[in-house]
Amino acid sequence: MCHSDLHMVKNEWGTSTYPLVPGHEIVGVVTEVGSKVEKFKVGDKVGVGCIVGSCHSCHNCTNNLENYCAEMILTYGAKYYDGTITYGGYSDIMVADEHFIVRIPDTLPLDSTAPLLCAGITVYSPLKYYGLDKPGMHVGVVGLGGLGHMAVKFAKGMGVKVTVISTSPSKKQEAVEHLGADSFLVSRDQDQMKATMGTMDGIIDTVSATHPLVPLIGLLKTNGKLILVGAPEKPLELAAFPLLMGRKMVGGSGIGGMEETQEMINFAAKHNITADIEVSQLSM
Amino acid sequence: MCHSDLHMVKNEWGTSTYPLVPGHEIVGVVTEVGSKVEKFKVGDKVGVGCIVGSCHSCHNCTNNLENYCAEMILTYGAKYYDGTITYGGYSDIMVADEHFIVRIPDTLPLDSTAPLLCAGITVYSPLKYYGLDKPGMHVGVVGLGGLGHMAVKFAKGMGVKVTVISTSPSKKQEAVEHLGADSFLVSRDQDQMKATMGTMDGIIDTVSATHPLVPLIGLLKTNGKLILVGAPEKPLELAAFPLLMGRKMVGGSGIGGMEETQEMINFAAKHNITADIEVSQLSM
Repeated sequence: MCHSDLHMVKNEWGTSTYPLVPGHEIVGVVTEVGSKVEKFKVGDKVGVGCIVGSCHSCHNCTNNLENYCAEMILTYGAKYYDGTITYGGYSDIMVADEHFIVRIPDTLPLDSTAPLLCAGITVYSPLKYYGLDKPGMHVGVVGLGGLGHMAVKFAKGMGVKVTVISTSPSKKQEAVEHLGADSFLVSRDQDQMKATMGTMDGIIDTVSATHPLVPLIGLLKTNGKLILVGAPEKPLELAAFPLLMGRKMVGGSGIGGMEETQEMINFAAKHNITADIEVSQLSM
Repeated sequence: MCHSDLHMVKNEWGTSTYPLVPGHEIVGVVTEVGSKVEKFKVGDKVGVGCIVGSCHSCHNCTNNLENYCAEMILTYGAKYYDGTITYGGYSDIMVADEHFIVRIPDTLPLDSTAPLLCAGITVYSPLKYYGLDKPGMHVGVVGLGGLGHMAVKFAKGMGVKVTVISTSPSKKQEAVEHLGADSFLVSRDQDQMKATMGTMDGIIDTVSATHPLVPLIGLLKTNGKLILVGAPEKPLELAAFPLLMGRKMVGGSGIGGMEETQEMINFAAKHNITADIEVSQLSM
């Protein structure tokens, strides 16, 4: 999920270029607090995700959905309240508004918790919002990358039966043995797909490449929900009839609000959920 | 909604042809009842909609969603339990299973109530299921044909603020003055569309021709729902990003179950809702 290279890009509010420094799954320990800070003290383990600001007054903000605020400020490459550019988390220190900081419980390791601040909340939020978090439900997870592997872990933590759907049969072992998915479905295998039709309450689709939706919609039960959390560049093809014939829906979801991000981290602590990571040293 | 012509078609379970007699918004008065009939007596005003049979035992049927039963029997052109062909409602008499018959309250005229049995339930059901029936909500209705004009009437009956969205400015008078819509939006007018962005809780899209979805999704608030009840022949283009950025969804809905169809008719009686019709004589 983290893009570690330094980009020079056109910025969104002018024609000049500035260095884009990414980093939006940031963890650390509080070293200093401002005089008005109430939630944190020096020594606390904390994290910052994709957003560091919002308007605090719109309907989204007042409903704990800062992630959908039209004035949301991204953690990197955006214009902060004071007009400066936000430079992400590839640094030794960072200053952030406490509203956009989450507490990381002591039982969670910092490094493997970091990706939860984007990938974790990106899949946790739709599982909750679209009601796919009920024990005994059957949820499909399409794609087994950064988002997908977190979706499997969170859905399993919720007591949901999980089927990983992938084009690559080679991912079966990782899905079932390592991540604990209940079953694995090769999306290119027509027989497997046909045998699984109409069995899923929902699907978390993490794929950001163009891909067909109709076969996935076919896997859903009546009232089933296909939730997109990846954003393919080109429009996808959506046949209306398969939606009509089972009152199905295709929904979207983008990260989550700050209250829910804290809830997700607390859920992760309770269920021992962390991301699979490789630790690297930054080289300059 | 009713197709009044007689078709000769290939049937679905063989190569021979049989006459397809449509008619799926059928009203009448009970003239005779079988010995086991409990719900109706001779003289009752009744109606039959799109379906006359289902399996009665699947998950859909046992949840009052006969309309999504895989063995649902359509009112015309389908194979009935006994192997005969269903011949629709263009006849002086019709025999139907009481489970698929709805009672029409005495206060409703038979002729203008008939279209409610398909068009009415097609729009009533998604307004209810997708939670777009709350007084004060703002719902858009795309297209002002058979389905669209019913959607305006039912949504208004629910206390919802209704905006009709149409490519034809000429429909404004019908929408606002005759049907009572609160406002009218010309979908080809970029300024009007822009000024209305992010204002709707949901949209009932009745258009069955290929049309762009992204401008409609743009009209929705965060968590807004675009519901398709028309079925364009070709797939529609669905850009994922606009769904992600406001947790929006595109859902489908197809007619309704028998319990809800009766509920819809009762709602229509309470709120004096009927369809706009022209009465014709059948000529042979």
